[in-house]
Amino acid sequence: MPFVRIDWFPGRTVEQKRESVEVLTREICRIGKCEPDSVGIIFTDVDKEDWGCAGKLFADG
Amino acid sequence: MPFVRIDWFPGRTVEQKRESVEVLTREICRIGKCEPDSVGIIFTDVDKEDWGCAGKLFADG
Amino acid sequence: MPFVRIDWFPGRTVEQKRESVEVLTREICRIGKCEPDSVGIIFTDVDKEDWGCAGKLFADG
Amino acid sequence: MPFVRIDWFPGRTVEQKRESVEVLTREICRIGKCEPDSVGIIFTDVDKEDWGCAGKLFADG
Amino acid sequence: MPFVRIDWFPGRTVEQKRESVEVLTREICRIGKCEPDSVGIIFTDVDKEDWGCAGKLFADG
Amino acid sequence: MPFVRIDWFPGRTVEQKRESVEVLTREICRIGKCEPDSVGIIFTDVDKEDWGCAGKLFADG
Repeated sequence: MPFVRIDWFPGRTVEQKRESVEVLTREICRIGKCEPDSVGIIFTDVDKEDWGCAGKLFADG
Repeated sequence: MPFVRIDWFPGRTVEQKRESVEVLTREICRIGKCEPDSVGIIFTDVDKEDWGCAGKLFADG
Repeated sequence: MPFVRIDWFPGRTVEQKRESVEVLTREICRIGKCEPDSVGIIFTDVDKEDWGCAGKLFADG
Repeated sequence: MPFVRIDWFPGRTVEQKRESVEVLTREICRIGKCEPDSVGIIFTDVDKEDWGCAGKLFADG
Repeated sequence: MPFVRIDWFPGRTVEQKRESVEVLTREICRIGKCEPDSVGIIFTDVDKEDWGCAGKLFADG
Repeated sequence: MPFVRIDWFPGRTVEQKRESVEVLTREICRIGKCEPDSVGIIFTDVDKEDWGCAGKLFADG
């Protein structure tokens, strides 16, 4: 533990995911007092036509 | 808040997703007494070979 | 299917949950063309000190 | 109920998913004392570039 | 990987959870060809007033 | 977007959650090129008797 899930729009590069895993693991462990070995992170790409906010799809701006 | 996730089979059109976001946001806010600005909704398509019920894949009918 | 999850702040009554299940099931089935028998919905109460937005906990207003 | 989600790397065959649904449903019902009719299971394929552990993406070995 | 989540009604004992973790890990690894060291499982208790199916709360029978 | 979920053991203080929301929002936006206003984060406490790894509950050490 901890276990982290991040939903975001498609388009992040592998390098951005790599840095996210490094930095988020380090910061969560520093703040939450836990061991990096145990931190799992899953990224999920969500298309703008599958994500809505305030009653509107992001695809509709 | 609230935050809503809906898993369903692939095949819903953008228009169906658009109406779902509009209607579900409106109804959740009406019933739950919350503001539409804060309602997020994510749809996830799940293939029938990735979804099982009662010990069987939906892909197997 | 579909399967729905709703995270919201604590405080919704059983009556509000009951109406939410009725209405959301009906509307999802109407819009998404699916059968009510197959719709599952789970509500999760999330405290304001466990939910953040825009860099701040909701507990901090 | 129960409702089960399994995230794993891509590559599992339909046959592996079929057997997983059969066996996990049976075992969860046996151990947890519940009815198979009510057990739902969703599988999600997660690419190695979308999954990190211990500060590194699985894609980076 | 894999990562497993199980939502069920409250009432499972620690012994039932212990056996579930043992058996599900073993069966998932056998069927999915993965290593037990990497299998994570989280159980979540969901009250019957927070779970609906077919338009009705389980709390309402 | 993005939307983040973090499961961890109980025991984190409000101050640790506050700092986590601040820092994770900032770092995700810096790396992923997104706006802080849109970042949601939910923390979930998971008891050691509800979390297993490698076939054993964390409660069993």
